[in-house]
Amino acid sequence: MIPPANPYPITIVIFGASGDLTHRKLIPALYNSFRKNRLPEHIRIVGFARRPYTDESFRTRLKEGITEFSDGTYDANLWEHFSPKITYFQGNLVNLEDFVRLKETLEKMEGETSNRLYYLATAPSFYEGIVSHLGSIGMAKHEDAWRSIVIEKPFGTDLASAEALNQAVHAVFAESQVFRIDHYLGKETAQNILFFRFANTIFEPVWNRRYVNNVQITVAEQVDVEHRGEYFDKAGVLRDMFQNHLLQLLSLVAMEPPTSFDADAIRNERAKLLSSIRPIEIEDTVYAQYEGYCPTEGVAEYSLTPTYAALKLYIDNWRWQGVPFYLRSGKAMAEKSTEITLVFQKPPHLMFDLPMDYDFTPNIISMCIQPNEGIHLKFQAKVPDSEQDMRSVDMEFHYRGTFDENAFPDAYERLLLEALERDASLFTRSDGIEIAWKLMDPLIEAYEKNPEFPVYFYPPGSWGPIEADMLLDRQGHIWRSGCMEC
Amino acid sequence: MIPPANPYPITIVIFGASGDLTHRKLIPALYNSFRKNRLPEHIRIVGFARRPYTDESFRTRLKEGITEFSDGTYDANLWEHFSPKITYFQGNLVNLEDFVRLKETLEKMEGETSNRLYYLATAPSFYEGIVSHLGSIGMAKHEDAWRSIVIEKPFGTDLASAEALNQAVHAVFAESQVFRIDHYLGKETAQNILFFRFANTIFEPVWNRRYVNNVQITVAEQVDVEHRGEYFDKAGVLRDMFQNHLLQLLSLVAMEPPTSFDADAIRNERAKLLSSIRPIEIEDTVYAQYEGYCPTEGVAEYSLTPTYAALKLYIDNWRWQGVPFYLRSGKAMAEKSTEITLVFQKPPHLMFDLPMDYDFTPNIISMCIQPNEGIHLKFQAKVPDSEQDMRSVDMEFHYRGTFDENAFPDAYERLLLEALERDASLFTRSDGIEIAWKLMDPLIEAYEKNPEFPVYFYPPGSWGPIEADMLLDRQGHIWRSGCMEC
Repeated sequence: MIPPANPYPITIVIFGASGDLTHRKLIPALYNSFRKNRLPEHIRIVGFARRPYTDESFRTRLKEGITEFSDGTYDANLWEHFSPKITYFQGNLVNLEDFVRLKETLEKMEGETSNRLYYLATAPSFYEGIVSHLGSIGMAKHEDAWRSIVIEKPFGTDLASAEALNQAVHAVFAESQVFRIDHYLGKETAQNILFFRFANTIFEPVWNRRYVNNVQITVAEQVDVEHRGEYFDKAGVLRDMFQNHLLQLLSLVAMEPPTSFDADAIRNERAKLLSSIRPIEIEDTVYAQYEGYCPTEGVAEYSLTPTYAALKLYIDNWRWQGVPFYLRSGKAMAEKSTEITLVFQKPPHLMFDLPMDYDFTPNIISMCIQPNEGIHLKFQAKVPDSEQDMRSVDMEFHYRGTFDENAFPDAYERLLLEALERDASLFTRSDGIEIAWKLMDPLIEAYEKNPEFPVYFYPPGSWGPIEADMLLDRQGHIWRSGCMEC
Repeated sequence: MIPPANPYPITIVIFGASGDLTHRKLIPALYNSFRKNRLPEHIRIVGFARRPYTDESFRTRLKEGITEFSDGTYDANLWEHFSPKITYFQGNLVNLEDFVRLKETLEKMEGETSNRLYYLATAPSFYEGIVSHLGSIGMAKHEDAWRSIVIEKPFGTDLASAEALNQAVHAVFAESQVFRIDHYLGKETAQNILFFRFANTIFEPVWNRRYVNNVQITVAEQVDVEHRGEYFDKAGVLRDMFQNHLLQLLSLVAMEPPTSFDADAIRNERAKLLSSIRPIEIEDTVYAQYEGYCPTEGVAEYSLTPTYAALKLYIDNWRWQGVPFYLRSGKAMAEKSTEITLVFQKPPHLMFDLPMDYDFTPNIISMCIQPNEGIHLKFQAKVPDSEQDMRSVDMEFHYRGTFDENAFPDAYERLLLEALERDASLFTRSDGIEIAWKLMDPLIEAYEKNPEFPVYFYPPGSWGPIEADMLLDRQGHIWRSGCMEC
């Protein structure tokens, strides 16, 4: 049970505060929430890292982060009010004595009972140690106030490591204290999937195997691995994108209606959906690497790490039995686009006289997650001034243009606010993480343990290898995009 | 059975050729079809009227009609090729000898076996006489070629007169030769209703009592009766708009899927739908007259003729049992708009924390017939940068912008082409007409036979009387417009 809200101040402790995430994402997010008057009044932010910052030099670096990464929101006057909340604590993540010192510093600084949010913004290898230190000196529990911990991704590198990490975390924190980040869940358009499905009457009746022919989830990045070669070459696209983002999007689009927006109600349904996924056949996967990947700094000379993957999966439940779900993600693709597309069955009977060669486009609903947030619905309309010609046309909804252009906060803004309110709906839970790894592990092993396993190549700026098209073609399907044409 | 197509030339004879319809609608429609290369090569157009035109002066008047009523399509060179097809025949509609003369003239002019389309563009009082003349001298039948007759609206003024007219017509012409005009059926957006419903998979599953809360059909005119006072004061809005246009739109939106686009398949379904309408309760009707109507030229001094009506009806079949259909039409309204709106049920369960006073807008599909042709779909979306606020937003499809701006021919263009091809899908059939009158007769009698019957008043430029809102309010409904806000 989550303890009831209390009036105590909150201290946010960011471990790994000198890293990119802090000044690019976390501080701009907190600053913007402060600007919008959404932060609790009594809040402290403590940065923990090894570098020899003073409070002042730390703040200066963070200020630069806001001017650089939070377009046009920097305001000197606001910063004057916000920055004093931030202090810096120099320490080493592996030294227990530094945690003891941190504890004393925090207690002195707080002066009264305070809630605490520990944010693990470090490299994943430090997670277990930090958690253990926090536990061993009694920083993870408090009689009256709450203690929460936010854990950045990646959460493990396979099922075994994720289970081990969960065990280490649960040895110190109850699950209700833990907030695991998958920032895709914080995107407005990802959140909207549940509203689209469950705050409306007319979509849910056709959201099932009777009407849906296939579902496609695309997370295409236009950038290549850039300076992340070393990390990426060890991870590969399945760990980097599928285990987390794609499976979370899949769970949102395919899950049963939760009873409420309560964190556990929603996460129960997400976990239920993930656990209904039939083990994915190796034959239903396609791996590829963009040409020119290997020379990247940090990448092994003859690396076979896939930068692109496509796969087909099935969900073994009443709603989706027999409906193929196609997932694909890649780097160095032709366009940046994250979208979920439902391709519907053709009408059971066509009363119209169609030309023999008419290429009938079925109904398609596309949820455009980014960058052109919106919903597109393809339907057949009569071509005016014709006898009975028809054509597939688009009904469109665009977030930008409907809502204030500035109303698209970075995902971290929402996620931090939710964590401060201890609402875990938009965070992943231990079971969901493990089920996702269980699905991915055999697929990753297939190519990591077998150097003969086919990894195809594709030219940068393309839509991936032809084999990915053939994967769909087996059942007469094609990749559809409802978002990229506009 | 419709005889098979034949290669013979076609002669179109327009009775009442000096009237407005001919030079405003019929000739511009034929001219535009000629321009688009859609007219059969061998076609003749003969205008029949009393006025002493020559071929030349008749053509001059028609040319003026094209320049005035067919924006930007007049082309001197084209006209040179088109106008010789038109000739004028001076005659009196009531004189049989003039028909004998017409017959001789046509036969001489044609010189060979020809098909003929007779177009009754006269005042309705002449219809029976013309039909009878055509029959009595053998102009209605031919061994090899076809003879068709197009009859303009209004078709009767009540059930008895419509039955009498149908009898008179059927005494001479088989139903398959008869094309009764309701130009609403020729509008592109009215035709699209069947495509929207039956060329798509995702709408039909929710197109029924389980998901639809109520249906609203609005035909609002901004103009008042203008110079048509004398006609309109006798007709009233029920005859002028409901018996024909509104009930035809209703049949398109509510009918069961026809097997094919075949004229009889479609008209069987339209007639079946109309005959499933439960007799309308007088208590479910509201009549009103705009303030300032009576002083109009041609209108009786204390006229109680309604210029506005609203009514509620039910359809007694499996699909629509219990779903109220609200129809309204009026003159001198705030805006010109013809639209069909389906208001759906609210979701059966809302998982979201909504504010107590949240005004939940259900899903609404609006088919915008005119003037802003399109489809609008209201749905709930998450308000970005909020925790879980939602708002009703619009997904939109606009014909103009999707299709060529010039691809919106006047309804008569399509209707004349269909009549020339003897496809009666877009025309009304004798049974449909009679069922519609049967529904309207008691409603018309209610106020025509009872001077005490309440006819309310509304200010010109308004949305009609408050009583029309109260009609819906009885069941907690409100008039919805999905087309007018944009």
